[in-house]
Amino acid sequence: MSLLVVGSTAFDTIETPNGTAADCLGGSSTYFSLAARMFTKVRLVSVVGADFPAAHRQLLLDRDIDLLGVEQKPGKTFRWHGRYSADMNSRETLDVQLNTFGDFRPKVPDAYRNTPFVFLANGAPATQRSVLEQMQGKPFCVADTMDLWIDREKDGLLALLRSIDGLIVNDGEVKQLTGKSNLIQAGKAALALGPKFVIVKKGEHGCFLFSPSFHYALPAYPTEDVVDPTGAGDSFAGGFMGYLATGDQATGESRTPANMKRAVAYGTVMASLTVEGFGTDRLASVDRATIERRYHDLQQFVAGT
Amino acid sequence: MSLLVVGSTAFDTIETPNGTAADCLGGSSTYFSLAARMFTKVRLVSVVGADFPAAHRQLLLDRDIDLLGVEQKPGKTFRWHGRYSADMNSRETLDVQLNTFGDFRPKVPDAYRNTPFVFLANGAPATQRSVLEQMQGKPFCVADTMDLWIDREKDGLLALLRSIDGLIVNDGEVKQLTGKSNLIQAGKAALALGPKFVIVKKGEHGCFLFSPSFHYALPAYPTEDVVDPTGAGDSFAGGFMGYLATGDQATGESRTPANMKRAVAYGTVMASLTVEGFGTDRLASVDRATIERRYHDLQQFVAGT
Repeated sequence: MSLLVVGSTAFDTIETPNGTAADCLGGSSTYFSLAARMFTKVRLVSVVGADFPAAHRQLLLDRDIDLLGVEQKPGKTFRWHGRYSADMNSRETLDVQLNTFGDFRPKVPDAYRNTPFVFLANGAPATQRSVLEQMQGKPFCVADTMDLWIDREKDGLLALLRSIDGLIVNDGEVKQLTGKSNLIQAGKAALALGPKFVIVKKGEHGCFLFSPSFHYALPAYPTEDVVDPTGAGDSFAGGFMGYLATGDQATGESRTPANMKRAVAYGTVMASLTVEGFGTDRLASVDRATIERRYHDLQQFVAGT
Repeated sequence: MSLLVVGSTAFDTIETPNGTAADCLGGSSTYFSLAARMFTKVRLVSVVGADFPAAHRQLLLDRDIDLLGVEQKPGKTFRWHGRYSADMNSRETLDVQLNTFGDFRPKVPDAYRNTPFVFLANGAPATQRSVLEQMQGKPFCVADTMDLWIDREKDGLLALLRSIDGLIVNDGEVKQLTGKSNLIQAGKAALALGPKFVIVKKGEHGCFLFSPSFHYALPAYPTEDVVDPTGAGDSFAGGFMGYLATGDQATGESRTPANMKRAVAYGTVMASLTVEGFGTDRLASVDRATIERRYHDLQQFVAGT
């Protein structure tokens, strides 16, 4: 089944204790697509500037990502410049130039309107909702958000949460969203806001999945060499949604607890690959055998008795 | 099989965002014993002052903990006074009075010398090693340590690590011990220092077990109401060692990967109980059915597909 993602495309300049990479291909929809394409056909809605090189476009096309929904506008592509702390568990943004992404009004091409799976990468809640309004029928929809929108667009975000199937956030965001300092309480409270499930990402500590019928905890893949954490969360979402989209959502088959858990594990694997290279380097070159090997290793890591 | 623990007995004054409790029964060996006694017969080696009340002694005796090795000396019992941060993930020590614990020279009673399982709670490495030297044969021995000893008694600690079966430490300690900032690298490096396994506790994020033949990750029990985190680590160790001691260590049966994993889960359950009350309140009153229910819930929380 095909999978639509709506989000940013960017040039990232990334400073880490291991070195710096300038003008990497980045953005939420890029990481998401490069992860999800290992599982299913991805349709991308994003915006780039006139400076977006043909080589980047080709890299995505070569990986079977549909770029019909990528609008190229006059001006520059979104740019982000960040620096990670020594332990890479925090980062500061040194510069942001929204450029063409600043007034991104996603237009879902006609050919995409019946896509059964939709991921709304981080963006203004009103913009995220505008995507849903362009879809035909009721796709299986999962969204990301961030502290900025919880802070400034709470009402819009709450409206979004009532109309989506799943929310993927990090631990700080879910606590901020719900006002609960205990993460289990926060996850349950987020569930009460509307989505059928909530995934709380905890970085190196893995993630929790909350749903009315089950809760699930999975650690991060035991990565020994983190090169650059940028894009880990979007890669997780891409692996998660990509795997779910391999099921048959029309019958609801893809949303069994067992499939949701497998999807969380594939998301975890894709995030582990991303952090092992600068930008999308590792994600763009991975093969399926590596993914399956890591999936198996991760299952062994948590296997009970 | 019986289980010997050597460590502190204390009066704790604990300040949390939820309130303050003064002069609680505490200390590493107390938490450990009250957790482990749910699984096996516990023999306690510790020291208290003349001010240690008969009621505390009776509380431990009523729970079938053998106090033959608890020395009562003139002077006062060890006192600790701490205050937790708002999210209870960190604490500051406001006051420590070592009192009779200051020159604790553990004496293992003759009747204890053949105990097949030994836990060396946090203490000076030389003191910990002196316990092992008093044992007959080669018990299955696990030790805790802390930043102070890694900093000041590294050589003594390294000697200890070469003579024990397992080490239980927290994430910060294992990084400090090994000089590795990546936790997986740190766990493996600690294993290379001698112990047959290393358990790294990550507080609310659960723990990792490292051994040459397998690695294992388990999240914390999904506790919604943390009242007081004091003693969680020692309760974990008590549940872990207590469960292992129910096996037959003479044949090595208790150290199968499956049994080690179950022991980690029981340790996790005992820690979750401790943090739900001030001091040892919850741990002293728990019943086996509650433990088994939590063990089951925890297995469900991590159950794959």
